[in-house]
Amino acid sequence: MKEKKMSDVQRLKQDYPWIQTPLVVGAPMRLIALADLAVEVSKAGGIGFIGAGTDTSSLSTYFQHAQRLLGASALATKNGTMPIGVGFINWGADIDVAVSLIQKYRPAAVWFFAPSSTASLMQWTEKSREACPETKVWVQVGSVQEAMGAVRETKPDVLVVQGTDAGGHGLAQGAGLISLVPEVCDAVETYFSRDGGAGGERPVIIAAGGIAEQRSAAAAMTLGASGVVLGTRLLASYEANISKGYRDEVLRASDGGQTTVRTKVYDTLRNTNWAATHNARGVINKTYFDAMDGMGEEENRRLYTEETNKGDAGWGVENRMTTYAGSAVGLVKEVKGAGEIVREMRGQIGGVLDRAKAIL
Amino acid sequence: MKEKKMSDVQRLKQDYPWIQTPLVVGAPMRLIALADLAVEVSKAGGIGFIGAGTDTSSLSTYFQHAQRLLGASALATKNGTMPIGVGFINWGADIDVAVSLIQKYRPAAVWFFAPSSTASLMQWTEKSREACPETKVWVQVGSVQEAMGAVRETKPDVLVVQGTDAGGHGLAQGAGLISLVPEVCDAVETYFSRDGGAGGERPVIIAAGGIAEQRSAAAAMTLGASGVVLGTRLLASYEANISKGYRDEVLRASDGGQTTVRTKVYDTLRNTNWAATHNARGVINKTYFDAMDGMGEEENRRLYTEETNKGDAGWGVENRMTTYAGSAVGLVKEVKGAGEIVREMRGQIGGVLDRAKAIL
Repeated sequence: MKEKKMSDVQRLKQDYPWIQTPLVVGAPMRLIALADLAVEVSKAGGIGFIGAGTDTSSLSTYFQHAQRLLGASALATKNGTMPIGVGFINWGADIDVAVSLIQKYRPAAVWFFAPSSTASLMQWTEKSREACPETKVWVQVGSVQEAMGAVRETKPDVLVVQGTDAGGHGLAQGAGLISLVPEVCDAVETYFSRDGGAGGERPVIIAAGGIAEQRSAAAAMTLGASGVVLGTRLLASYEANISKGYRDEVLRASDGGQTTVRTKVYDTLRNTNWAATHNARGVINKTYFDAMDGMGEEENRRLYTEETNKGDAGWGVENRMTTYAGSAVGLVKEVKGAGEIVREMRGQIGGVLDRAKAIL
Repeated sequence: MKEKKMSDVQRLKQDYPWIQTPLVVGAPMRLIALADLAVEVSKAGGIGFIGAGTDTSSLSTYFQHAQRLLGASALATKNGTMPIGVGFINWGADIDVAVSLIQKYRPAAVWFFAPSSTASLMQWTEKSREACPETKVWVQVGSVQEAMGAVRETKPDVLVVQGTDAGGHGLAQGAGLISLVPEVCDAVETYFSRDGGAGGERPVIIAAGGIAEQRSAAAAMTLGASGVVLGTRLLASYEANISKGYRDEVLRASDGGQTTVRTKVYDTLRNTNWAATHNARGVINKTYFDAMDGMGEEENRRLYTEETNKGDAGWGVENRMTTYAGSAVGLVKEVKGAGEIVREMRGQIGGVLDRAKAIL
């Protein structure tokens, strides 16, 4: 057990030589995590991801911006890769554009999520590896079944295990990290130790969903993860590409299990075309209340569209703009620099484990 | 922080002198956790609870049975209390019967859950403390709001913080322990350090929901809990009062986020009278599929009632008997003695924390 974990850390440091451990990753939040946020996370010793999501139209610009920001930083990289990653929502992203940009900009990692099929995930993986063999493949999963499907079919370098407390999109049906991470770890362990893993290398497991600070990060490590992903926490960073109204709502909301909900409602009115298998967690607002009270989709969509003209005033419980956020939103109370968030959290994880040990 | 935790452990050892730490608690699973299970958990250095739930009709018998089982065990107790607890689902339990039995049998703890109102919870608490001042009051909550309401109004000795991965009943809307425990800890901390706690004593915080083994137990400690509750894991103990069909289904189910679901469906067909605020997590079966496919309540109830005659063959995905279980069900693969489960888990928590520390 310990040997396996040690080698996971060694692999991480080998593949992403600029990082410090425990590894903190910046989630590829769609069109919110752009070059500024990704670079700041990496400069702080984490791995920052640009969130292209379904939209590759401006990705080239984001990569160029990241190159400029990274210019003077002298982060140690491997084989000339760019020391950030990029995330795609596979079902909606243009594979040809994505692959050509992977080839051109050589990000250290790609993060795949929600492919339309296993065949599609295999295609993305193969094409990405062809385009830039040094770019590591991260695959986000939300169940044991998804995890083992991804492991068997694509041999990912990293499995991002997302629990149902995550903000934004994920499996509609799921479990929290507390039970999901150990079960995925055991399934992966069994596959590689008993079945040999079909010649592939065991993926590093990284946890996402509900982790906003050092206690939850430490918990994820005890559950079996070798690193953690921050999403909601980074919404309240200076570098996030986010409206003030959205950010203020993240700061305001507390008791996240009660004030956020996983639902299709916000997708529906935004016409996002997500499959029935997925929904998204966001702060409950008027759109959601109206939908629960039986308002029809069209009327709700019309009211939402009107609200988009209200600017920052469109966010809040009594308003309609969508605030995707995880159930840890109540632990986010202050806007800080992304680098400070990453460094502070990383520096406190050891102390949390020590205190837990001390009270046994 | 460390001092507070040290004193929580000291308080636990003072109030329940037979325990060993880290504290492992056996959940008061309604009519499944009876004297055999409760006593076995306590004998292993945990705190076992009898699950009276809504039904106090045989509780006297259970207490008597527990007395016999405890007779030769010589567990160190405090002021002659019985070294087990008893759990009530307050909205449905008879307060007069409950209080008279608390007075007579003096359990070390009572566990309150789902009162019909704050006033009712206050009444239960006051009457229980009057009947037996040595009996500690545990209150189960599922949100920050519930937690602070309970703390302010009833000054519980223990707050049991239940995450949404829990099996059986809980708040219909909730968060996993990964975000819920830290937020509750912070709210309690603020109330007592900044606001003085209105003269009350800070409750010990214990985590429930999705914890089936040492990794999740260690995670709960890092999140801020001073002890953990086992529910689903103990369904697969020799001492659980459970049908073979139910237990086999717990052993069979895996990938708990996918194969269990929080729903009102199982309550509806069993006419349990639970309020809309609560639902329950159970393994998905034919009842649930039919309900999702639009089958009416009456027909579904009729088919369920028929199935109750099938005995153990009534459980399983293609059948209709309800298998309440948490999302950690996939980590439960073997029937063991409850004492062995508790001792094994407790003995491994320190090692889990050490390994997490070693890979930083």
